[in-house]
Amino acid sequence: MISLDFHPAGRHFLQIPGPSPVPDRILRAISYPTIDHRGPEFGALGRKVLADIRKIFKTEHPVIIYPASGTGAWEAALSNTTSPGDTVLMYETGHFATLWKSMAQSLGLQPEFLGLSGIEGWRRGVQPDMIEARLREDGGHRIRAVCVVHNETSTGVTSDIAAVRRAIDAAGHPALLMVDTISGLASADYRHDEWGVDVTVSGSQKGLMLPPGISFNALSPKAIAASKEARMPRSFWRWDEIIEANKNGYWPYTPNTNLLYGLSEALDMILEEGLDNVFARHQRLGEATRRAVRAWGLEIQCADPAVYSPVLTGVMMPDGVDADAVRKRIYERFNMSLGQALGKMRGKMFRIGHLGDCNDLTLMATLSGCEMGLKLSGVPLQGSGVAAAMEYLTSHADTPVLKAAA
Amino acid sequence: MISLDFHPAGRHFLQIPGPSPVPDRILRAISYPTIDHRGPEFGALGRKVLADIRKIFKTEHPVIIYPASGTGAWEAALSNTTSPGDTVLMYETGHFATLWKSMAQSLGLQPEFLGLSGIEGWRRGVQPDMIEARLREDGGHRIRAVCVVHNETSTGVTSDIAAVRRAIDAAGHPALLMVDTISGLASADYRHDEWGVDVTVSGSQKGLMLPPGISFNALSPKAIAASKEARMPRSFWRWDEIIEANKNGYWPYTPNTNLLYGLSEALDMILEEGLDNVFARHQRLGEATRRAVRAWGLEIQCADPAVYSPVLTGVMMPDGVDADAVRKRIYERFNMSLGQALGKMRGKMFRIGHLGDCNDLTLMATLSGCEMGLKLSGVPLQGSGVAAAMEYLTSHADTPVLKAAA
Amino acid sequence: MISLDFHPAGRHFLQIPGPSPVPDRILRAISYPTIDHRGPEFGALGRKVLADIRKIFKTEHPVIIYPASGTGAWEAALSNTTSPGDTVLMYETGHFATLWKSMAQSLGLQPEFLGLSGIEGWRRGVQPDMIEARLREDGGHRIRAVCVVHNETSTGVTSDIAAVRRAIDAAGHPALLMVDTISGLASADYRHDEWGVDVTVSGSQKGLMLPPGISFNALSPKAIAASKEARMPRSFWRWDEIIEANKNGYWPYTPNTNLLYGLSEALDMILEEGLDNVFARHQRLGEATRRAVRAWGLEIQCADPAVYSPVLTGVMMPDGVDADAVRKRIYERFNMSLGQALGKMRGKMFRIGHLGDCNDLTLMATLSGCEMGLKLSGVPLQGSGVAAAMEYLTSHADTPVLKAAA
Amino acid sequence: MISLDFHPAGRHFLQIPGPSPVPDRILRAISYPTIDHRGPEFGALGRKVLADIRKIFKTEHPVIIYPASGTGAWEAALSNTTSPGDTVLMYETGHFATLWKSMAQSLGLQPEFLGLSGIEGWRRGVQPDMIEARLREDGGHRIRAVCVVHNETSTGVTSDIAAVRRAIDAAGHPALLMVDTISGLASADYRHDEWGVDVTVSGSQKGLMLPPGISFNALSPKAIAASKEARMPRSFWRWDEIIEANKNGYWPYTPNTNLLYGLSEALDMILEEGLDNVFARHQRLGEATRRAVRAWGLEIQCADPAVYSPVLTGVMMPDGVDADAVRKRIYERFNMSLGQALGKMRGKMFRIGHLGDCNDLTLMATLSGCEMGLKLSGVPLQGSGVAAAMEYLTSHADTPVLKAAA
Repeated sequence: MISLDFHPAGRHFLQIPGPSPVPDRILRAISYPTIDHRGPEFGALGRKVLADIRKIFKTEHPVIIYPASGTGAWEAALSNTTSPGDTVLMYETGHFATLWKSMAQSLGLQPEFLGLSGIEGWRRGVQPDMIEARLREDGGHRIRAVCVVHNETSTGVTSDIAAVRRAIDAAGHPALLMVDTISGLASADYRHDEWGVDVTVSGSQKGLMLPPGISFNALSPKAIAASKEARMPRSFWRWDEIIEANKNGYWPYTPNTNLLYGLSEALDMILEEGLDNVFARHQRLGEATRRAVRAWGLEIQCADPAVYSPVLTGVMMPDGVDADAVRKRIYERFNMSLGQALGKMRGKMFRIGHLGDCNDLTLMATLSGCEMGLKLSGVPLQGSGVAAAMEYLTSHADTPVLKAAA
Repeated sequence: MISLDFHPAGRHFLQIPGPSPVPDRILRAISYPTIDHRGPEFGALGRKVLADIRKIFKTEHPVIIYPASGTGAWEAALSNTTSPGDTVLMYETGHFATLWKSMAQSLGLQPEFLGLSGIEGWRRGVQPDMIEARLREDGGHRIRAVCVVHNETSTGVTSDIAAVRRAIDAAGHPALLMVDTISGLASADYRHDEWGVDVTVSGSQKGLMLPPGISFNALSPKAIAASKEARMPRSFWRWDEIIEANKNGYWPYTPNTNLLYGLSEALDMILEEGLDNVFARHQRLGEATRRAVRAWGLEIQCADPAVYSPVLTGVMMPDGVDADAVRKRIYERFNMSLGQALGKMRGKMFRIGHLGDCNDLTLMATLSGCEMGLKLSGVPLQGSGVAAAMEYLTSHADTPVLKAAA
Repeated sequence: MISLDFHPAGRHFLQIPGPSPVPDRILRAISYPTIDHRGPEFGALGRKVLADIRKIFKTEHPVIIYPASGTGAWEAALSNTTSPGDTVLMYETGHFATLWKSMAQSLGLQPEFLGLSGIEGWRRGVQPDMIEARLREDGGHRIRAVCVVHNETSTGVTSDIAAVRRAIDAAGHPALLMVDTISGLASADYRHDEWGVDVTVSGSQKGLMLPPGISFNALSPKAIAASKEARMPRSFWRWDEIIEANKNGYWPYTPNTNLLYGLSEALDMILEEGLDNVFARHQRLGEATRRAVRAWGLEIQCADPAVYSPVLTGVMMPDGVDADAVRKRIYERFNMSLGQALGKMRGKMFRIGHLGDCNDLTLMATLSGCEMGLKLSGVPLQGSGVAAAMEYLTSHADTPVLKAAA
Repeated sequence: MISLDFHPAGRHFLQIPGPSPVPDRILRAISYPTIDHRGPEFGALGRKVLADIRKIFKTEHPVIIYPASGTGAWEAALSNTTSPGDTVLMYETGHFATLWKSMAQSLGLQPEFLGLSGIEGWRRGVQPDMIEARLREDGGHRIRAVCVVHNETSTGVTSDIAAVRRAIDAAGHPALLMVDTISGLASADYRHDEWGVDVTVSGSQKGLMLPPGISFNALSPKAIAASKEARMPRSFWRWDEIIEANKNGYWPYTPNTNLLYGLSEALDMILEEGLDNVFARHQRLGEATRRAVRAWGLEIQCADPAVYSPVLTGVMMPDGVDADAVRKRIYERFNMSLGQALGKMRGKMFRIGHLGDCNDLTLMATLSGCEMGLKLSGVPLQGSGVAAAMEYLTSHADTPVLKAAA
């Protein structure tokens, strides 16, 4: 293998908003020898992960696990529910919402793209009233689906999915609700059934702490019914054959066995910690990060405190500062990867990932690296974000973090 | 993780025709920490594997690496080159050729399915004259592509791809030649450019000795040109964006980083051994297996010695013997997985995989397990296949197998 | 790392009588990150392995775990119980018994070395009557300890330890009984308490399926009492400080943390399978091996069927055949390591290991490699050992080997 | 395996002065399958590590690698060079020097223990003039060896070994110079040959970044000569047999194969980075740590700036503060292990390890955890050590830390 470590010594800090750092337990799990995907051991593995993944999505309905990375699960959601030429209502929260819209176009759909204008739209969550208004106009129910992003990985802004559901219902519109929570799942609270989502799209390399390579569609009965009528050409992504084979823990074609080992381990880890504890930990790390950003005197990309992401924080640079030059300096000098700004925001901000297998000291390393890198880059800082984060973390960790020894 | 080993002790023998046993070097490689797929280390990794994979396909043109298992690469080949309603000429060599045809139907294509009738068609390779004859009839050139399987994983029969190319050329037909060598690549000789293939489909979990989860499309300039005209809805599988991003070693969406570590290691291993040595090893193991089958007095599924597969051997059971009961007994008693017969052959034969990270003693273990399991199942055997295989292996290994110590 | 694989492809067969093949579960376990050997997690690990290892030795008394390979545990047994100039009665069963005697000399003890004369002594177990006779002569009780080897790794001969105990008791002699079962533990039945052993010496890289690097002294109260009087200079090997620190799961100096992870996993595996099942499996593999040797018309090193080792089998070469040349050929041609003959037997035989993580098919691979290598070396064989072993294995495996799937 | 992680999420920070954090490359290396320690592949491995380890000790003479943890290498140094009753002059720099002295007593030697009185002796390095004076008094040359510790792991104080050599020479005394640099090797500059050391003792789990389990004796020709005369009973630790077997890359008894894989990888990593770069990195991290301690207004254990350790820093608590309670709080709340104070210092200080696979951000995480833990424990701090460390690190990293991508 080519050397993967250009830095002379010490652990790399992978603080991008995904892939998140993969825990050792999971790296060991994925290195177990591959087994026969049609044998009884595989069936036991398959039944276990298919049962446990529902707990993460909070659903009692089928969750499809694809041996493909997250972008594939976007396509799966669209191709199982629509027919060529269908209209889908999508909402621009950021770069990934925009990419999903482009995919819809590639697939021959007619996406309508709602959203607040300019940069402002990338700093706030979905506006349910805009969706309701548009659906009310659609008397003929030409809109097949409403597609929104729960946690915009490009900005650090979440959206209120339950409110979108209420908007659709208020409009009395039959459109399916499809939600991308690729980077939100298992980090931010998410409730597929309770919120009335029809298709939830997610991936492995974020809150699930796995390498990239598997992705998900959580379904509702209404979505399954819609798939019987949908005429978009599809084969690999078809839900029906997978649902059938999954009943016994198998897949209709070769699954991604070693990542399923990792998924099994990840589900164990998350359920051992407890989903609510996982969410609380992400909230604490997110708040500490935002306090650091404010102490530096910099602006947080997300302009609405009600929808701050617990997964990542977008940090905007003062005018004239090239965010990518700052990132590069931090990468080269401090062996830490931060997330690049994407699309409209290119060069104007960077993204700090604080998701998955992170804890207080990982975050302090991260914020220290940012603070030092900003200073070395000549960015004027009002104060120490590191100090502010330490102040927050020492005053807000009421719950014990240590488990009792066995 | 749930326990993956139901057997009390000792290594499992995974002798199915894929996934093949994953070598330790590769299992270690895939367990390295996941890195930023947009960082400079990833770019170096990407450029390396993209360059080296071409040597395996023997092509100077782009090879697409998908973060999806092999079935996805079938869909990619079709969706990049065809438009809804197009006719494709496919040839029935076995179960996987049949599945590919079903996929073409799912995608809204019009597959014509050539082949010899009955079981006989599953015991011989592609008949190029049948293809030539059909193409000559297609004066209007409605047939968009000819699709054949190079190594039928369901039967252990290969096909002469160069002859198929000659048949197309002899007919003066512009159809694309698309070949599935999912289980043949890096085990059986394959020459994408020399044989004039337009799209070669392959996967990771066979001759490349990786876990499942990545797959390939090797392209020709003609295939790339065709993709500009093709109107099949597609996004995830699009070649154009991937080719563009690959120029710098990246992908347009999140790649399957940890399996790419494994691919890098696998390519090193194969190129260290030398492709011709790899092929010769597979030929030797295949011939030893067939001698065993003949010594048992059983029939080899492949009826044409010219196209015996070096990857796997189908062993037909005498009338009245349930091949799956034999397999189950071998699995439970000897901790070895053999390949189930598929489709038309269900219950009538089993498949012995002798591909990838296998050597003489792995094969002897395998054949011993088969011989003991057949006896315990009451299958009458004419003689010892194990003895016949040992006789062959001791008299046919002229090349030294030991490398000089460093 | 330098490349450790000089062979072009396929798994190496490590069929020496230790180190035995290390199972994947254990290799993964030893690669977990090293922790603080004074922290609470380590204490929990220490307490677990210290409790479970007693079940393997079948003792209720302390078992010392040294962060040192097996030879060290020999020295520990002697240095904790003797004083310079002491006489110890040792019995020559083979090369390792001879090495232990040499160690006693190096340490300034006066070993007396009993045994049958010539090669014959290396083909039979300990003769308890010889020990009893010698002890009866020792009216002044100058002999401090009787030292015997339970499973002679150099020959494949075991000894009846309970009979040695009875011999000592019959002589009314207070000597300690010290037993080396480095290669016998967890493969052959062993009962420290029931058999009245005072110090049992063992190692990690045999029946425990671990890499080399940790070793054991199981103690009796009498041995502990003797250690208070012993005046041999010692520090690293002192039992008293280790026993004291072990009470809480710790060690007085830095333990071999990662091998303790492996030990924990190994103990789980063995106790899951059940010690009696482990022993029965070794017996079956040993008998199959001996039937193969007899079918070849070769002689088994062990001349007394009552004490055949279930761990390894010594195979004697006909006159004029260089056993090491046969081994080298097998290594180079078939990628399998066999055990070299040691000491008096050098060049006259080779040793087949069938211990630890081995099963029927591993053994068949091993015997096939031997049979082919013997033929290629021109050794005349009477018949097929492989056939004889298959005959035995198919007719003697009444117990189901498959565990129920979870 | 029992769960080794009592903390709910995120990486543990192992900031004790050894075992140091083991890099992923090394953890993967030690998990390769164990091979035959008498086969040709092992010989190649043995020759490589035996050659490269000399570069780390900066010696052209043999370095013995023991399959035993560091305490064993202390015993080896003494038992190969002395006879029962010999006098050895040892110097009290801290707890480990004291333990080595106790070992000498256990072995039946007569250690004389020099040193400054009280706590003061634990805050300064070896005083060469005291050694010279004592040696001058020893007209009869009864003192067999002078034993000193290069980097006192219990205090964070180094000693000037070249000055000790000069002191011995100035006294015209033939005593051997034996040095423990268990925690100094590969972190602090060390020159076995140039400094005239006769036996250097070291271990694996510190600067070499390995798990514990192997240890070292680097020798001089004078030490080897002395070993021919020494009458201390010994066998496992004997240099002569090991030196002989090492000529071909083997050991006289079973070596610790898997840790040797790790050693091979560690040597590659260190030599790739360059020893001088490794030392400079440790110096920078050490200085940043000390600036943090001073900014907190706390006292550094080492009272002589000339001999600050680049490996660890001892942090003294104000009167009335229980250092172990602070450590426990940090462990439980921040998932970080710090080193306990040992011996005379118990409860009065804690030790921060900044050795091995550490970099700037690891250190910032560490110092943040200390600062937060001190505050939560009610320890009054004058200022922010974290801020002081960041100030130092941003102004002192002139050398580029990023390697060029391949």
